[in-house]
Amino acid sequence: MDSKAARKKDVPAREKILFAAFDLFHEKGIQATSVDDILKHSGTGKSQFYHYFKSKEGIVHSLLQQMHQRLKSDLTINPDINSWSDLEQWLKRPGEMQESCSCERGCPVGTIAANLAPKDELIRQDIQLIFETIKTKPRAFFTAEKAQNKLKPEADPESLATFCVSLIQGTALLSKVERSTDPFNTGIDHALIYLKSFKIE
Amino acid sequence: MDSKAARKKDVPAREKILFAAFDLFHEKGIQATSVDDILKHSGTGKSQFYHYFKSKEGIVHSLLQQMHQRLKSDLTINPDINSWSDLEQWLKRPGEMQESCSCERGCPVGTIAANLAPKDELIRQDIQLIFETIKTKPRAFFTAEKAQNKLKPEADPESLATFCVSLIQGTALLSKVERSTDPFNTGIDHALIYLKSFKIE
Repeated sequence: MDSKAARKKDVPAREKILFAAFDLFHEKGIQATSVDDILKHSGTGKSQFYHYFKSKEGIVHSLLQQMHQRLKSDLTINPDINSWSDLEQWLKRPGEMQESCSCERGCPVGTIAANLAPKDELIRQDIQLIFETIKTKPRAFFTAEKAQNKLKPEADPESLATFCVSLIQGTALLSKVERSTDPFNTGIDHALIYLKSFKIE
Repeated sequence: MDSKAARKKDVPAREKILFAAFDLFHEKGIQATSVDDILKHSGTGKSQFYHYFKSKEGIVHSLLQQMHQRLKSDLTINPDINSWSDLEQWLKRPGEMQESCSCERGCPVGTIAANLAPKDELIRQDIQLIFETIKTKPRAFFTAEKAQNKLKPEADPESLATFCVSLIQGTALLSKVERSTDPFNTGIDHALIYLKSFKIE
């Protein structure tokens, strides 16, 4: 078997491990997930894991890099925002995802971010990049609206985008704690009223 | 030594353990903190720990109950809000606390909340109570303002209080990820503009 064929054969194992790790990190966080948990959940072997990822920190880094790439390139995951209705959908989507798991989970990235220890500098930088990439969508929308004089001059696209991402993170956390999307929906409704107050009709 | 004297002598050990556990949970979360870490950090012995707390879940529960009691009764920790200036101070305080640790940590309660696994039902309920108690302060302020016709009729004290607590949680998380209070300050500035839009001058 040549090396290309070997790689092809190996792809599913790597993906299986990444998928299982994502699922466990999302459910209970990085710290509560052991490499053994990931092996069991993915049905793969220790040698496969260590061939690809070296360590738990290694798989967290790979996973976050993969998420970052997908958020940058896959419009089904992080769609463009071209209208106020798109913005509303974009803001509400994390709540729909949470509802689909009965609010037993929060944002997958936020869950990892919350338990960053000071030593986790590489992971922190990965997460910072992800949040920056998520922010590009509302920021681009506010910037375009402003360029067309549809947004009041005092509206700052960068800081409004930060506000959006912060509010999603906070409301998702409260929804996880309450096991209900009520805090999420409440927060996003307020955000929409606030954001629309910058509109020039 | 009678049992009262024995209890007195023991009080510092329990408090030392609780303080060390709080510090470690705040720094890196529950899951990354072992009972051995807590013993080492508190300078206490295994028998003392198990005498008071039985298990790691036991100490998390005790700690959250203690935090809840303090938030309910200690006005220096969770002060009343009697004016818009009080509200501003109340909203900004978590950011000042984060700045004091160079944003290496987020909200102590939010850090625990983010990594709740579905099985952690007791801890989830403890955290829900804490968030409810924190919310009482802005809710009471908005309710009082409304009763005095100083707040527009459409302002809903309960949902505005939820909005405040969500935003604090989300901005604190982004500030931890960015190692800067910029996201916190940005979020709170927007919140204040929004909340004040309900004022009747």
